[in-house]
Amino acid sequence: MNRAVVLFSGGMDSATLLFQAATQFDHITALSFRYGAKHNAYELEACDRILKHMTSRGISTPIEHRIIDMASCFTGFQSNLLKSGGAIPEGHYAAETMKLTVIPGRNLMFLSVAAGYAESVGASTVLIGVHLGDSHIYPDCCEPFVKTAAGAIAFSSDNRVTLLAPFVNSTKNEIARIGQILSVPWHLTRSCYKDQELPCGKCGTCTERIEALGSIGVVERKH
Amino acid sequence: MNRAVVLFSGGMDSATLLFQAATQFDHITALSFRYGAKHNAYELEACDRILKHMTSRGISTPIEHRIIDMASCFTGFQSNLLKSGGAIPEGHYAAETMKLTVIPGRNLMFLSVAAGYAESVGASTVLIGVHLGDSHIYPDCCEPFVKTAAGAIAFSSDNRVTLLAPFVNSTKNEIARIGQILSVPWHLTRSCYKDQELPCGKCGTCTERIEALGSIGVVERKH
Repeated sequence: MNRAVVLFSGGMDSATLLFQAATQFDHITALSFRYGAKHNAYELEACDRILKHMTSRGISTPIEHRIIDMASCFTGFQSNLLKSGGAIPEGHYAAETMKLTVIPGRNLMFLSVAAGYAESVGASTVLIGVHLGDSHIYPDCCEPFVKTAAGAIAFSSDNRVTLLAPFVNSTKNEIARIGQILSVPWHLTRSCYKDQELPCGKCGTCTERIEALGSIGVVERKH
Repeated sequence: MNRAVVLFSGGMDSATLLFQAATQFDHITALSFRYGAKHNAYELEACDRILKHMTSRGISTPIEHRIIDMASCFTGFQSNLLKSGGAIPEGHYAAETMKLTVIPGRNLMFLSVAAGYAESVGASTVLIGVHLGDSHIYPDCCEPFVKTAAGAIAFSSDNRVTLLAPFVNSTKNEIARIGQILSVPWHLTRSCYKDQELPCGKCGTCTERIEALGSIGVVERKH
């Protein structure tokens, strides 16, 4: 059995990754986290909606959804993305203020849990949906990080687990193009960082989402 | 301020590491985890005893003890070291059966939390007490793992956090020799993997402890 663990946040990127993985693996664990982010509850609702949609669409790849509570691990962490931090900045990802939304070490924490679980259940592959647009702001989304994290996971698991980040050199527009081929239900995904049900349309991730969906001709009206 | 985060389990190695770090850093966070291991409660008691001893000995380096609950992250993990797993094997670390005590990905999980916290509080260094004796059994204790994990942490933190494993090429006997110089209170440390108050004296870590302490002329009678 060709089994994978996919980091799944309910956003455009990880949803596209999950749909693509469903075409490549026999069994998938979609791994989501409760970690104290402002938008955490909305993310998890999106994850649930997307998984139900996959079932209703007749996608038959078995997908197990695991939600891990990691909130205590982030106690004392400094980030405006967390409930404990300041306001989410508005504007483009390229803006310096978006650095306030970095959570130190987050992706390595998520990946290490994913890799340990993968090894425990005999999954050969861990997948993460980081992309080129992220890497300007988030150091744990760039290719050198992914390569060294892949090395650490390979050594830690005696080469039983491989980390893949298929979009690490892709733009968000390219992800949108791939997701469109896979008929990813964009309206069920959630990007906004703010602690509110309706996306704000103004924060970095909303701005990027609008641009990427716009590039494939999708215009949303919900914010 | 020269600040460090030390992974601290209350055993011989991490206690020696903590005492050594107290000679090198201005402020230390000793980071311990609740993660569902059979010996977890005894480990944490040992941590507490050792820290109280340091205070009573007049060691003035400020040491903050943080205990992180990570148990939910290890749900579904396969290891006899966990409460959910089978019996702790007896015999020497070199024995093949000791591999049953590997917890997939554990050290990368602990290190990633330590690194994220370090970056959040402005600590430049994360320290882990892995050593040569561990590396035969535990893939996440060997030097190649430490080097790649250090790389991942460096990239993830924009080079703000450095991972050090000063004992990675030392034997346990060498750690005992260093700990003796630092007057580490061996009787307050805890090594045994079993879920019992008195060390069993028979599991791999008890066997290794008896050998290492024996090499510096310390014989314990408590098991």
